[in-house]
Amino acid sequence: MSDALSADTVQQSLDAKAKPPGSLGRLDAIAKTVALVQQTLRPDPDPARTIVFAGDHGVAGEGVSAYPAEVTPAMVRTMAAGTAAISVLSRTFGIANEIVDVGVNADIESLAGVVHAKVGPGTKNFAKEPAMTASECRAAWNIGVDAAKRAADAGAKTIILGEVGIGNTTSAAAILAAVHGWTPEQSVGRGTGVDDAGLARKIDVVRAGLGHVPHGASAMAVLAAVGGFEIAAMAGAFVGAKEHGIVAVVDGFIATAAATVAVREAPSVAAHLVAGHVSAEAAHRRALEALALSPILDLELRLGEGTGAVLAIPQIRAACAVLREMATLEDVMTST
Amino acid sequence: MSDALSADTVQQSLDAKAKPPGSLGRLDAIAKTVALVQQTLRPDPDPARTIVFAGDHGVAGEGVSAYPAEVTPAMVRTMAAGTAAISVLSRTFGIANEIVDVGVNADIESLAGVVHAKVGPGTKNFAKEPAMTASECRAAWNIGVDAAKRAADAGAKTIILGEVGIGNTTSAAAILAAVHGWTPEQSVGRGTGVDDAGLARKIDVVRAGLGHVPHGASAMAVLAAVGGFEIAAMAGAFVGAKEHGIVAVVDGFIATAAATVAVREAPSVAAHLVAGHVSAEAAHRRALEALALSPILDLELRLGEGTGAVLAIPQIRAACAVLREMATLEDVMTST
Repeated sequence: MSDALSADTVQQSLDAKAKPPGSLGRLDAIAKTVALVQQTLRPDPDPARTIVFAGDHGVAGEGVSAYPAEVTPAMVRTMAAGTAAISVLSRTFGIANEIVDVGVNADIESLAGVVHAKVGPGTKNFAKEPAMTASECRAAWNIGVDAAKRAADAGAKTIILGEVGIGNTTSAAAILAAVHGWTPEQSVGRGTGVDDAGLARKIDVVRAGLGHVPHGASAMAVLAAVGGFEIAAMAGAFVGAKEHGIVAVVDGFIATAAATVAVREAPSVAAHLVAGHVSAEAAHRRALEALALSPILDLELRLGEGTGAVLAIPQIRAACAVLREMATLEDVMTST
Repeated sequence: MSDALSADTVQQSLDAKAKPPGSLGRLDAIAKTVALVQQTLRPDPDPARTIVFAGDHGVAGEGVSAYPAEVTPAMVRTMAAGTAAISVLSRTFGIANEIVDVGVNADIESLAGVVHAKVGPGTKNFAKEPAMTASECRAAWNIGVDAAKRAADAGAKTIILGEVGIGNTTSAAAILAAVHGWTPEQSVGRGTGVDDAGLARKIDVVRAGLGHVPHGASAMAVLAAVGGFEIAAMAGAFVGAKEHGIVAVVDGFIATAAATVAVREAPSVAAHLVAGHVSAEAAHRRALEALALSPILDLELRLGEGTGAVLAIPQIRAACAVLREMATLEDVMTST
């Protein structure tokens, strides 16, 4: 479309504001992303919605996490009760929060406040066999596409994607290593806090998992081989955000692995992404750089759940408000 | 008081939450500061208030800014109209905004929406003579003390201090150089955007100003010699925050110079400070480190007005909400 709003037009509008050009630093780039997605010089990220996908990982049995797999359903219950970190932060910022069970290894069907869409009771142990079949992976992906559609249908202009799943930094590390050609050592970090022995086990497990990924495999094939149900759902939701013309905020290492797969499968997704934060996980910054994303926050978080993405919503709101509401230098000097 | 809430007690409460200890990164330290100031495990930074002090600088005549001095009253008018950056950001976050004329070189007494407390029509040119007399400096300081009291009387739990005043990065650089024993080259940066020639002029001007500061001068004497009316008022407001038991959020380079003077004059002020951001100004990070402050945001801002401080309010709200509202791990595991 020749009449589409361009990045140059948005930048000109920002530069005309009553401030030295560029003096609001990285807020300009944030405003630009939302303005271009929404195709307006009056962008607004609200209403926003946090969506947390929950799934268990067979690989958790390899001792790759500081926490037992039982923590996954316990955290889903806490989210449903509204007292998990993501619940508190979403509420603090006036944002609706949806929780989707895409593969928790516990019978939680009766739990209210959760979208029940379980593909299976956790993935297989990818150190020994593929985590998912191709059809399971596609099913989980589609649950994410559906979640993005549900959000868009409810009027959401921004989705904030998070996850919970013990063992999932190991899965994310394997995905990123396979997609980017990184070594396990380059990709694996301490997650929520494993010790040196745990770190060594994670590296071994990722190496074993990569052994099952064919050379030249597509991102989708990598996802099936070493991913997780919740990671596949997040990837689908990123693609869904693009399909519905909304912004998606990327959280930490695991969400970034999902975004990486989404962009490989559908490159036009990239223009819809904002990176909420860079986490304490060693390879996260590098994974964001590979997506050409500059994180808004650097608070040394390592919790997941979407916490680092929802925490950046106020800065996205602020950046858009500056573009919408600030006076121009011309306004100021002519009124003096 | 032996029954005072201690930092250890707050940390224990944070570590008991349903998350890996430390996994919310620097939010812990933010929650701790507010909890200790308010002496409660249920801290809340709201209501908050932004206070912008405006003043002109004789030193602006030396060509140390990319903008003419006429911009100061123009920006005050824009703030009064609610369309400056600080107005937009305060409104976005639901925060009241007060503007105080403590020394603008223009007849703006009839302007509504401004607290008129002008000490004089701008400071003297500190490259040639002291910026203020001791009594002018004290008068400006007291205007800040009064502003903090006005905020506290209105129920504010947090004040966000900002400034506008063409030439004031030069003044702030001179203050920090004098207090810390830095060279002009270490202290001076590009402010809102001077070119190389402007930077060289700023360095020369700061060197000249430092020549008028007696060796071993108190921070208050430094402030009178090379400071500004709005910087003195901010310093007074930081001390006022301490007197009224509220939190004060430090903005950029100029606010940090004011906070530095306040802490030198009243060391107990330090426990009431939260650093909103580190700006693009070269010496800002070093000035924050000297106050043992870790900035919440790093968005490459260089605007002032309190913008980098108010932008960090959501993260302060979030940190406090986590401490107030999150479930403990014990809650989670016993309900499973």
